[in-house]
Amino acid sequence: MRIILVGFGVVGKSVTTILARRYAEKVKDYGFNPKIVAIADIDGAVINPRGLSPEKLEAIKQRGFPISKDPDFGHPGMSALDVIESVEAEVVIEVTPVNIKNAEPALSHITKAFKTGKHVVTTNKGPLALAMPALTELADYNKVYLRFSGTVGGGTPMLEFAKRCLAGDKILAIRGILNGTTNYILTEMSQNRVTFQEALANAQKLGYAEREPSMDIDGFDTACKVVILANWIMNKKITLKDVDRTGIRDISLQALDEASNSGNTIKLIGSVDGGGRPTVKPTEIPKTDPLCVSGVLNAVTFSTEFAGEQTLVGRGAGGMETASAVLRDLLYIRQHLANKLLT
Amino acid sequence: MRIILVGFGVVGKSVTTILARRYAEKVKDYGFNPKIVAIADIDGAVINPRGLSPEKLEAIKQRGFPISKDPDFGHPGMSALDVIESVEAEVVIEVTPVNIKNAEPALSHITKAFKTGKHVVTTNKGPLALAMPALTELADYNKVYLRFSGTVGGGTPMLEFAKRCLAGDKILAIRGILNGTTNYILTEMSQNRVTFQEALANAQKLGYAEREPSMDIDGFDTACKVVILANWIMNKKITLKDVDRTGIRDISLQALDEASNSGNTIKLIGSVDGGGRPTVKPTEIPKTDPLCVSGVLNAVTFSTEFAGEQTLVGRGAGGMETASAVLRDLLYIRQHLANKLLT
Repeated sequence: MRIILVGFGVVGKSVTTILARRYAEKVKDYGFNPKIVAIADIDGAVINPRGLSPEKLEAIKQRGFPISKDPDFGHPGMSALDVIESVEAEVVIEVTPVNIKNAEPALSHITKAFKTGKHVVTTNKGPLALAMPALTELADYNKVYLRFSGTVGGGTPMLEFAKRCLAGDKILAIRGILNGTTNYILTEMSQNRVTFQEALANAQKLGYAEREPSMDIDGFDTACKVVILANWIMNKKITLKDVDRTGIRDISLQALDEASNSGNTIKLIGSVDGGGRPTVKPTEIPKTDPLCVSGVLNAVTFSTEFAGEQTLVGRGAGGMETASAVLRDLLYIRQHLANKLLT
Repeated sequence: MRIILVGFGVVGKSVTTILARRYAEKVKDYGFNPKIVAIADIDGAVINPRGLSPEKLEAIKQRGFPISKDPDFGHPGMSALDVIESVEAEVVIEVTPVNIKNAEPALSHITKAFKTGKHVVTTNKGPLALAMPALTELADYNKVYLRFSGTVGGGTPMLEFAKRCLAGDKILAIRGILNGTTNYILTEMSQNRVTFQEALANAQKLGYAEREPSMDIDGFDTACKVVILANWIMNKKITLKDVDRTGIRDISLQALDEASNSGNTIKLIGSVDGGGRPTVKPTEIPKTDPLCVSGVLNAVTFSTEFAGEQTLVGRGAGGMETASAVLRDLLYIRQHLANKLLT
């Protein structure tokens, strides 16, 4: 399996690490032979049709200068779109930064990949939040796979759990704590009695929150994940604009205290059910609810017809965690291609 | 798919309900056409090679007398082994009561099914706890499937989650609250400050504990589930005797108070990791641990190499919940048979 990696930040680098580290094992277990034949980032690309060796990838990561300056295989200034168009490969891994205004450049990368017959694995919520119904249709039309396990729950396989493990049952509703930053802030506020502003400053100091924190604290990130869950699991054809969204800026210590007096706490909950509008808003939940996880943890509860409520808890972010989701998606594609070849 | 149902207690009856209720939908979604052609219990059997209709099954459930007295299709005194041997079917669903002394009669039912070329879906922990390595080998030898989703976690797909959703990662350790009865007792003791004996009496009154409660409170049930997890997920060839087991009889209110003072509580934890002996014992865990669920809930935490700790929480028992696991197993077999036919 030849792979083009687009984006070489935290997740991109973790993907190369994980593929190198688990290479021998995966080949043995799954007959899976992944080769990164090109990496593209904002400055240019490195390309080697025979596969960039783990040592080469390691050397690229260690160096201070852009990947495209690699003396052997560098292509300074070559655009990701050109790489996707001209390099032969089966899969494009899209891990550029999220943009929820127009989803670029990821949206163009993904559509270009589809049009050139390449499967796509992405951890980028932007294109899915803005255009998931259209993208899944485009993938079907071009007979390629679009996989995005890493977009919800980081390494925690929330999407696969619902799709693969709950087969035979019916999911009636989903609600979740889908953003670690806001959960950290609310946990800090309620456990250490600091104000929203102080908790936010702590989160920024620890690297849990961006300097421009709106994506997290205004609920956009959670809303993107609700869109993905709603499309993928509840079969709703919605995009970001369809989500009713409220962030956590206005949560006061007093509100948290009052909740606590009734054995509850306030969490930023994203939810979607059979009817009504998908929603993101601060919500009081019992402290004994399995969904009520603390710190940067994420959790999601699926309400099912026969098996009751099932809750999945895990770390929602992190380079290696998210890269493990990319590996899962690659294995999924490899397995399905193998089955098709057999028929 | 023709099915022989062996055992017609709470789970067996729920299986017929679920198959009847979801019949039309499943046929549509999965091309799955399940037909119960025989039911056997301790008194005899009902057999109809054309399939027992949902109305017939309902009538059988409503009646006070044994199924084998059915005027149309009853076979009083016919043994389950004879039914398995003589009735044509693809799958045997084994849901007789658990017996961890010699695993009978379930063990004989399952081996008879294998030898006559039938796949087996069971919710019965006994045969697996005592002979899982041998049974999986026998299934392989006879080229049939043995599925047992309902044995761990009731309707919560703990086994599938580990096997299917964590592919590509490596599970390093498993620990869990795998028995709802003991979790209810410990929760009652710590939250309502009642003694072990009082909490047990409450559990018996509510139907959460048997009159002979040893299976639960002495940790046998948890140990059975640890054996299944260890074999299925960690690839260990062990049986019940290999588990180091301590129950909850000796947990005092004082011990719970002391744990509580350090922000912890005591739960009956089953665990298995790469080295060492699988263990069941009362263990202090932080109240903020996602594993720390209350009441009759079950929870299991998988520690993975890349994606960190992932915890799955759900109801561990219940007729409909467990029957939903049986349906999942039937769909799994149906899907794999379909794939084989295509190749």
